[in-house]
Amino acid sequence: MPDPLLSRLCIHTATTKPWSLRQALDGYRAAGVAGITVWRDALALEGVAESARMLRDSGLAVVSLCRGGFFPALDVAGRQRAIDDNKQAIDEAATIGAPLVVLVCGAVPGQPLHESRRQIAEGIHAIEPHARARGVKLAVEPLHPMYAADRSAINSLRQARELCEAIASDHVGVAVDVYHCWWDPELEVEIAALGQAKRLLAFHLCDWRVDTRHLLTDRGLMGDGCIDIAGIRGCVERAGFKGWNEVEIFSSEKWAMDQGVWLGEVVKAYRERC
Amino acid sequence: MPDPLLSRLCIHTATTKPWSLRQALDGYRAAGVAGITVWRDALALEGVAESARMLRDSGLAVVSLCRGGFFPALDVAGRQRAIDDNKQAIDEAATIGAPLVVLVCGAVPGQPLHESRRQIAEGIHAIEPHARARGVKLAVEPLHPMYAADRSAINSLRQARELCEAIASDHVGVAVDVYHCWWDPELEVEIAALGQAKRLLAFHLCDWRVDTRHLLTDRGLMGDGCIDIAGIRGCVERAGFKGWNEVEIFSSEKWAMDQGVWLGEVVKAYRERC
Repeated sequence: MPDPLLSRLCIHTATTKPWSLRQALDGYRAAGVAGITVWRDALALEGVAESARMLRDSGLAVVSLCRGGFFPALDVAGRQRAIDDNKQAIDEAATIGAPLVVLVCGAVPGQPLHESRRQIAEGIHAIEPHARARGVKLAVEPLHPMYAADRSAINSLRQARELCEAIASDHVGVAVDVYHCWWDPELEVEIAALGQAKRLLAFHLCDWRVDTRHLLTDRGLMGDGCIDIAGIRGCVERAGFKGWNEVEIFSSEKWAMDQGVWLGEVVKAYRERC
Repeated sequence: MPDPLLSRLCIHTATTKPWSLRQALDGYRAAGVAGITVWRDALALEGVAESARMLRDSGLAVVSLCRGGFFPALDVAGRQRAIDDNKQAIDEAATIGAPLVVLVCGAVPGQPLHESRRQIAEGIHAIEPHARARGVKLAVEPLHPMYAADRSAINSLRQARELCEAIASDHVGVAVDVYHCWWDPELEVEIAALGQAKRLLAFHLCDWRVDTRHLLTDRGLMGDGCIDIAGIRGCVERAGFKGWNEVEIFSSEKWAMDQGVWLGEVVKAYRERC
């Protein structure tokens, strides 16, 4: 009997970062994983066209492309380069059959956050017509406030939702990642509002280790930390989300493991602890 | 000519953690620092009564006692212990002449944040009459969301303000620490609201290092990170705050230095970069 939960499991290639795209496709399929979110670095080895062929042949659903964004820059040329790069990401998503590009919006250390936020809105405005033309949606992923210095000036679901409302496109929504949002006192209210507005486009899973050792590469496996993942999944589903449960775990500790063994642990934790 | 900025400089004993209270008093006075915020561990060596005498004799203004809080616990007995300990902190503050106890509100890993938040409100309610009776105010310090697992379930200025409004005591307000709040899109609005409500009780300074290496002990010296400290100080002052500029820097790197040299750097950075 097929496991209905497993049929919604998607793994980010970054979760098994040491694997090539080919290894990831083989490994995910063998583990019964149904979907894949592709990080752009995973396309580099074979190129976009060949990677697209491999993805098609794999039978896995391509859930999204990670990642676009990083719109703010100190000068116009830098911001234009970001826009061009995002358009290219949209093209790559269309080529590999990904319906969604996830946006890590960016920030420039020392530039006032309100200015970075303005540049982010400007950047998304600039690429939205291209996304629409290619049939690709854009998901703003608010990042944990500990990344506000250099990765994203969008740090809460409310900010992300208000940004989407200002852009007012049915091709722009939000990716909810439990790692970035679990602490937010407005979490439930904002997830409901995103559902209402039909802007809940993606749902990412991992866990917050209580004794986090590194800001970037010490995410926990689901159940190894303190996030109420099942509770947040309930919120997301009550808000009408019927999409994928995407596991995205950056962990230098786990990347040092045999990735097949690690993937087995991920699938087990997903079945038993989410 | 006295430096008006320097006359508002307060150092937290935790900033020069390797120093005893005696060394801190001598060092701060020699450096022209006018105020001191005392961490409870600094009272341990000489005891509260003798420390109080030393503080009185030093001529330094005692700005606050750090810290009370940590109200949530899994059982009633644990929460009662926290309340008792907070009452003792209030007594210690009264004894050393500190008009304020700063509250790091606490959290229990795995306990739902809304339950920890309820327990925090309950705990502050329980100690407020004691604080009032001893003439000591309580300052809720919202902590950065990266501390939501085990240090504080109060993670934004808005949450802290709303908590104060629910408690509705003129003895309960908020401590604004740039490290915890700089990323908050509601920063300016919330500081103004706190000023309006006469609940802006303390202002803490340090900086956010862009390549932060440790979640707890890698705070930056003012100017070494990306926080717009002068901008936030401007907000706080426009909101009517006339109190101390308190430097609170946890840094294993700086604690390894000669603390006199380190204090000199702190005072210089305060004069030139805040």
